[in-house]
Amino acid sequence: MRLSRYFMPTLKEDPKEAQIASHRLMLRAGMIQQSSAGIYSWLPLGNRVLKNIERIVREEQDRAGALEILMPTIQPADLWRESGRYDDYGKEMLRIVDRHDRDMLYGPTNEEQVTDIFRSHVNSYKDLPLNLYHIQWKFRDEVRPRFGVMRGREFLMKDAYSFDLDYEGAKIAYNTMFVAYLKTYARLGLQAIPLRADTGPIGGDLSHEFIILADTGESEVFYHKDILNLKTPEGDHTPEELQALVDEWTSYYAAADEMHDADNCGVAEGDLVARRGIEVGHIFHFGEKYSKAMGATVMGPDGKEITVSMGSYGIGVSRLVGGIIEACHDEAGIVWPEEVAPFKVGLINLKSGDEACDAACEDFYAKLQAAGIEVLYDDTSDRAGGKFAKMDLIGVPYQVTIGPRGLKTGVVEFKTRKSGEKEEITPEAALNRLVG
Amino acid sequence: MRLSRYFMPTLKEDPKEAQIASHRLMLRAGMIQQSSAGIYSWLPLGNRVLKNIERIVREEQDRAGALEILMPTIQPADLWRESGRYDDYGKEMLRIVDRHDRDMLYGPTNEEQVTDIFRSHVNSYKDLPLNLYHIQWKFRDEVRPRFGVMRGREFLMKDAYSFDLDYEGAKIAYNTMFVAYLKTYARLGLQAIPLRADTGPIGGDLSHEFIILADTGESEVFYHKDILNLKTPEGDHTPEELQALVDEWTSYYAAADEMHDADNCGVAEGDLVARRGIEVGHIFHFGEKYSKAMGATVMGPDGKEITVSMGSYGIGVSRLVGGIIEACHDEAGIVWPEEVAPFKVGLINLKSGDEACDAACEDFYAKLQAAGIEVLYDDTSDRAGGKFAKMDLIGVPYQVTIGPRGLKTGVVEFKTRKSGEKEEITPEAALNRLVG
Repeated sequence: MRLSRYFMPTLKEDPKEAQIASHRLMLRAGMIQQSSAGIYSWLPLGNRVLKNIERIVREEQDRAGALEILMPTIQPADLWRESGRYDDYGKEMLRIVDRHDRDMLYGPTNEEQVTDIFRSHVNSYKDLPLNLYHIQWKFRDEVRPRFGVMRGREFLMKDAYSFDLDYEGAKIAYNTMFVAYLKTYARLGLQAIPLRADTGPIGGDLSHEFIILADTGESEVFYHKDILNLKTPEGDHTPEELQALVDEWTSYYAAADEMHDADNCGVAEGDLVARRGIEVGHIFHFGEKYSKAMGATVMGPDGKEITVSMGSYGIGVSRLVGGIIEACHDEAGIVWPEEVAPFKVGLINLKSGDEACDAACEDFYAKLQAAGIEVLYDDTSDRAGGKFAKMDLIGVPYQVTIGPRGLKTGVVEFKTRKSGEKEEITPEAALNRLVG
Repeated sequence: MRLSRYFMPTLKEDPKEAQIASHRLMLRAGMIQQSSAGIYSWLPLGNRVLKNIERIVREEQDRAGALEILMPTIQPADLWRESGRYDDYGKEMLRIVDRHDRDMLYGPTNEEQVTDIFRSHVNSYKDLPLNLYHIQWKFRDEVRPRFGVMRGREFLMKDAYSFDLDYEGAKIAYNTMFVAYLKTYARLGLQAIPLRADTGPIGGDLSHEFIILADTGESEVFYHKDILNLKTPEGDHTPEELQALVDEWTSYYAAADEMHDADNCGVAEGDLVARRGIEVGHIFHFGEKYSKAMGATVMGPDGKEITVSMGSYGIGVSRLVGGIIEACHDEAGIVWPEEVAPFKVGLINLKSGDEACDAACEDFYAKLQAAGIEVLYDDTSDRAGGKFAKMDLIGVPYQVTIGPRGLKTGVVEFKTRKSGEKEEITPEAALNRLVG
C-alpha cells in the first residue's frame, strides 16, 4: 500500500479525551474515530488489525472443533423473557421497539439465542457434543463508556457455546476451550494467564478469566512467577491430555485483586508477583441454567429426556486491539506483535522525487508485494523525521529506509521496531530477512 | 468436515412459510433459521457461503483501490439531522433511544457517517481521490419482511463511498466501481446485467442497478440479447479504458419493467429479450447532496474551498446468497457456483462401518484435506438414498461416492452436480480432477 493513496489520518498531538495509552495511540495512529460515546468507526489501519485478530481467533476456534454460525445483532425480547433475563438485565441492555410495537433488543450476549437454535434442531444424544460460536457485534449501553475500544458500547466479540450430555462431557468442552485460548493468545503475541473466576450461584471451579500483563492494565493480579515459564500447548490432544494441561496451568497460583488472599495464597513471598493486567477472555461452565429454563433437551441412549449441560466462552475481539496496545507499546508508539500488525514492513523513501531513491524503493516494494509481504510504502514528500516518527507510531514490526547516501554504498537501513536496533545491510539481505 | 460432527439440520419437507425457491432451499438445507420476522441466524452451511461471497466482494473492492473501513451499526441521530434525512426516512429506520435519552438509530445506510469521517480528516485536494467501503450489518424495518434473506430486516451489505474534486473525477470513480462490479459478479458465477436506473432529483446518467437473471426473479427486465455475449473485463484499466468499457456495456439496451418503453426502446423485436431478474447491486453518483449539507470540503490547488463530489456503491452480500440460489437451483436443490460453494466436494460413504469402505473414504478424505480442498464427508449411517438427496440439496459442485461394489473393481462414482453427469473412475482420477 502506498501511503500517498492510503487513508491514515495520524495526529501529532495527544488527543485530550484519551486517558489511557491504547486509546491515545489508536486515535494518534488514525486507527479509529469516535462516532458517539463508546461507539467507534474503524479506519483502514484499525480495521486491518481487527481483521487479523478475528482471523486468528476464528482459526483456533475451528481447530478446536467449534462450528461457526452467525446470529443477528437484533433479538426478540421474548427469548429473554423465557430465561428471565429480560427484566434482570437493567439499563445496559439496549431495548428497542420496532414499527409493529414488538419489543426487541440489541444483543449484549447470545445464550438465549443459541439455546433456541439448539432446541429447534437437536434431538438426540448422538448429535452431541456440539460447540457453536460466532463473531458478531454486540452492544452494552455502559453508563460511562471510556478507555476507547477497551470499554465501548458497540464491540466485537467471539462467543462460543458448548452443549453436552453431562458434566463430564461439558468438562471436556471446557478444557478444549481453555487450551484453545492459550493457543490463541500465544498466536496473538501475548502472554496470557488464566485466573480462577467467580462462579456465583452456579458453583464449581469451571470459570476462568484470561488476562494479559500490561503495566497500564486496569486491575492488579497476583501470580506464582513460574506460571510464566509454562509452554503453550501445541497440536491436538486427547481428553486426558487436555485435563493434564488444564491441571498444569491451574496448579500455579493466579488471582485477581478481588479474589486474592495474601495470607492464604500458599505462595512463598519470593515467588509471588504482583502486576497489572487486562482481561481478554472469559470461559464459564453454567450447566443447565439456560437449557432448563428454555427446554433444551435431547433423547438419551436409554430413551429418557436429558437437559443438556452448557458452557460459554468469550473473547473480546475489538477489546483485544486495545489490550494488545496496552501490552505492546513504548514512548514512540505502538509495537505490534507480527501476527496482528496491520503491515509487516514500513518502507521509507528518504527522498521522494529523487530518481535513484524512487527506483530503488519501487523495486523493493514490488519484490515485497510479489512475495506476499504486506508493506506500507511511504512515498510522500514529507520530511524524513516525520516519516520515521509515523512508522514508529503505527508500530509496523520492520522498517526499511532507502536514501541517497545509503544507495551510493549499496545499503539500506533495516530497523526492528521492538528492539530499536538499526543495521545497514544490502537490499537483498533486507529482502531475505523479510521474506525468509 | 465430517457430517457426523457437523451441524446441518436439513429438512425433508418444504417449510410452509417459504414462498420462493431460495427461502425454501435455505431452510431445507439448514443454512438459516429465522430469529424473528425478517431476521435470521446463519447456521454453519449458510455462514460459509456468506463468508465466501464477502471475501470475493472484498477482494474486488481492494483491487479497485477502495479502502476498507468499518463503521458501527448504531449511529447518532444528529448526523442524520444534518443531512435532513432523520425526519424524511420514515418508519423503515429503526430508531433507538439510549439510556441517556439520546436519539440513536440502527444504520440503514452510511452516507452521513462516512461524510463525517471524511470532513473530520481530509482537508486537501491532494488527498483525493478517495473511496472508502465497509461490509457491515444494516437494518431496515420493512413493514412486511419476506422472501427470507432476499428482503430481510437485518442484512449484510457492502457499501462504498467515493470522494472526488469534481464531476470528472467522480465519473472515473463511478466507472471503476462499474467495472469492479462486473468482475465481482463474474467471480460469483453470475451473469449480471447493468440497467440504467432512475437518478431522481440528482439527474444525470450515473446510476445503474445490476441484476442477475433468474426464472424466479422478482421483476421483469428487457434487454438486447447481445449484451449476454459481452466478455467480463480483466486486469487493470486506465481511465480511458474504463470509460470505453462502461460505454460498451451501456450501449446495449437494458431496462427494468418500470423504465421500459416498448415502443421507443430502439431494439428490433427479434433482438429484445424479456426475462425475470433480481437486483444485486446499485451504484449511484449523487454529487454534492451530502457534502454540501454536511460541509465536506477540501482546499483546492488554488487555495479555494471545494465541496467534494460523491457517489455510493452497494452490493447486498446476504441478499446475494438468496439471489445466487434463485439463479442456480433445480428440482433436487441448490447448484452452487464453485467459488461460493460451502464445500467443493461431497464425499459419500455408501456403507459406513464397512472396513474397506471406511478405509477408502478416510484415505480419500485425508488426501483432499491435505490438498486444501474443502470437503464434506458423509460418514453417517444413513441410507444411501438419503445421502444422495442431501448432497444434491445442499448443492456441492462435485460428489464422490465410495461403495463396496465399486471398490471391488477399483472405481468410485464421480458426479458433477450441475450437469448431473456420473462417471465411474479410479480414486486417483477423481482426486486429479478435484485437485488439479
